[in-house]
Amino acid sequence: MMTTPSTSLRTASSAEATALHREIHEQPKVLAKLLSEGWPTVCEVAQRIAAFGPVWVNIVARGTSDNAARYAQYLFGVNNQLGVALAAPSLCTLYNTAPRLKEALTIGVSQSGQSPDVVSVIEAARKQGGLTLAISNDPDSPLARAAHLCIELNAGCEQSVAATKTYTTELLAFAMLSAAMTGHGEQREALLTVPNAVESTIAACSTTMGNATHYGHVRRLVVVGRGFNFATAHEIALKLKETSYVLAEPYSSADLLHGPVALIERDFPVMLVAPSGRGHDSVVELLDVAEQRGARTIAISDVPAVLERADLGLAMPKGIPEWLSPICAVVPGQLFAETLSTSKGINPDKPRGLSKVTLTR
Amino acid sequence: MMTTPSTSLRTASSAEATALHREIHEQPKVLAKLLSEGWPTVCEVAQRIAAFGPVWVNIVARGTSDNAARYAQYLFGVNNQLGVALAAPSLCTLYNTAPRLKEALTIGVSQSGQSPDVVSVIEAARKQGGLTLAISNDPDSPLARAAHLCIELNAGCEQSVAATKTYTTELLAFAMLSAAMTGHGEQREALLTVPNAVESTIAACSTTMGNATHYGHVRRLVVVGRGFNFATAHEIALKLKETSYVLAEPYSSADLLHGPVALIERDFPVMLVAPSGRGHDSVVELLDVAEQRGARTIAISDVPAVLERADLGLAMPKGIPEWLSPICAVVPGQLFAETLSTSKGINPDKPRGLSKVTLTR
Repeated sequence: MMTTPSTSLRTASSAEATALHREIHEQPKVLAKLLSEGWPTVCEVAQRIAAFGPVWVNIVARGTSDNAARYAQYLFGVNNQLGVALAAPSLCTLYNTAPRLKEALTIGVSQSGQSPDVVSVIEAARKQGGLTLAISNDPDSPLARAAHLCIELNAGCEQSVAATKTYTTELLAFAMLSAAMTGHGEQREALLTVPNAVESTIAACSTTMGNATHYGHVRRLVVVGRGFNFATAHEIALKLKETSYVLAEPYSSADLLHGPVALIERDFPVMLVAPSGRGHDSVVELLDVAEQRGARTIAISDVPAVLERADLGLAMPKGIPEWLSPICAVVPGQLFAETLSTSKGINPDKPRGLSKVTLTR
Repeated sequence: MMTTPSTSLRTASSAEATALHREIHEQPKVLAKLLSEGWPTVCEVAQRIAAFGPVWVNIVARGTSDNAARYAQYLFGVNNQLGVALAAPSLCTLYNTAPRLKEALTIGVSQSGQSPDVVSVIEAARKQGGLTLAISNDPDSPLARAAHLCIELNAGCEQSVAATKTYTTELLAFAMLSAAMTGHGEQREALLTVPNAVESTIAACSTTMGNATHYGHVRRLVVVGRGFNFATAHEIALKLKETSYVLAEPYSSADLLHGPVALIERDFPVMLVAPSGRGHDSVVELLDVAEQRGARTIAISDVPAVLERADLGLAMPKGIPEWLSPICAVVPGQLFAETLSTSKGINPDKPRGLSKVTLTR
C-alpha cells in the first residue's frame, strides 16, 4: 500500500530549493512509479533471460551507475546464484578487444545512455551472440537502441549533476529484475514497501540533518559498508566528492582492516553504513575501532543502539530486508552531502569541472 | 639476459634499512627467480586451464592481492579474451552462498594463503566442479591446499606489513600465466626483460626521490591510472595509506571525469601513472586539467615530455610493453611511500593498527 509522498512534495516547493534538493525529495514518487509501471517490462526481461540461461553476468557502467552495478553483484550473487563481473569498459575502447561474452548476460547501465564506452561493450557482446540489456533513463538513447532489451527508469529529467533519483531507480530496477527472476512472491511484496521506507528516511533525517553542519570543515572522510551496502558506501563517497569537494573514500569494513585502517586517528570522520542484516556486525566492529581511536562517527542505521553510540546518528525505518536496504541507506548520505555542500557555500547543482553527461571513450 | 641486481643488494646492506626498504630493493632478484624457477609450473597450469576451457575467470583476493587481480582483469581480457570477475568474498562468508562457478576458473590470490574468506570461495568453486588455482607465497598454506593448482611466488619471507615484493611477483605470476596460455614467443621474451627494468627504475628513482620529501605534509592525494595501470594507481594509493597515513584515492582517469574531478584545486597533489601505451593519453589529459587548476603533479612515466611537465617526474626505463609496465610503474610509488613515511617519522614496517596477516571472515 502506497500513500502519496506529501512530505517530499511540500519541501520541494520551496523557492530556493536546488535541483539536487528537489530530486532527492522526488525519490519516493519516482520509485513508486517504476514499481507500478515498470513491472510488466521487468517480467518480460526476466523471461528472456531465463530462456537464454546466462552462465555469468557482465555489467558495464561508470560513476554512479557503476555503484548500482556493485549492488547488483551482491544481489544476483545472493538471490540468483549468478556470478557478476563489473566490466572494464576500456578493454573495448582503449584496447579494441572484448572478452568472450557469448554465454553472458551483458548489462549496460547509464542514466543518459550516451556513454560511448558503455555502448561499445553492449555492441561487442551482441555481435558475439550474448544477451544484452540496457538500464537507462532514456529509452531512445544509443545504449537502449544497442541492446536487445531495455528497462527504462522513468525517473523524469535529472538536472543536478550529482545523480540521486536515477541511482535509487537503478537499484530498484535491479531489485525488481532479481525478484522477477526468482519468482518469489514475498520478494515482490517487500519491493512494494520501498517508496514509503525512502519517504520515512527523508522525514527522519530532515530533523537531524541540522547537526551535519558541524562537519562543514571536513576535507577527508571514510565511508564504510559491507555486503549489499558496500555499494552504498561507494555512492555516498561519490556524492560527497561531487558536491562538497570532500576526499571521501569508500571501504568494505573487511578491506579497511587490510591496511587503510592506519588512517583512522583522533577526530578523523568515519561514516558507517550499518543497516541490520548480515553485513551489520562487520561494520559495527569498525565502530569499535573508530571509538578506540577517538574518531568522529556518523552512523546510518535502523538499530537504535548504533545510532546512539555514533556522534551523529541518521535513522532509517525498521523492517527493510537487507537486500533492499541500499535503496534507503543511501538517502541520508545524499542529504548529508547536500547539507555539507550548502554549508560550504557550494552550489551542488554545478560542481566545478563537471558536466551531466560524460562521453568517456 | 639478466645481470646481477647489484644496486639493490648494495643499498639493502645499509644498517638502518627497514624491512620495507630491503624488500623494495629485493624485487629484481625475486622477480628473476620466479621467472626462471616458476616457468615449468606455470606451463603445466596453463595446460590444465586449456584442457578445462573456462568460460570466464573469477578471482578472489583482498588488499594488495586484489590490486594484482585488477591487473589480471585487463591482462586476461586483452591478451586471452577472457572475462574476469573480481569476486565479492563476502558472498560466501556473510551470505553463505556462492554463484555458479562450474564453468569458471576461480583463482585465489593471497601472500600468506591464510585468509578464510578467500579459501572459502576456492572450496565452493571446487565443490561445484570448477577449476581452482592458488597464487601464494606459501605453497603449504590453507589456500594452496584447497585449490587444484598452485603457483608459488617464491619471494622469500615478507616482513614489512606493506607488501611490495609479493605484489610485483603476483603481477609477474599472472603475466607468465597469460603468456603461457597464448604461447606467443615474443611475450616470453618480453617477460625476461622485467627484472632489469625494475632494477633500472629503482636506480633512476633513487636519485630523484629526495624531492619527494617536499610532499611530507601532504594528507590527501589522488593517484590516476588507466587500463593496465589502473591497478598500479590502486596499489600506490594503498601503500600511501598503509605507510604514511595519506588519504590517497585511486582513480581511472575516465571515472575521475565522471564526478570526483571537482576535488582537484590549487596545490592539490595529483599522481599520474602514465607509462607509454594505450592508457597514456587519457592520463595525460588529466595532467592538462591538473595544470589548469594549479594542482601539484607527480608523474610516473617513460615519456620525457611528461616527466618534464610534472612538478616531480619519476622515470621508468623505455621499451617495456604496456601489459608488463605495471610491474615497473608501481616501484616509484613504493619508493615515494617509503620516503613520505620516513620524512613523517613513521616506521613503515609497523603502521598503527595493522598486522601482516588479516583473517577476514
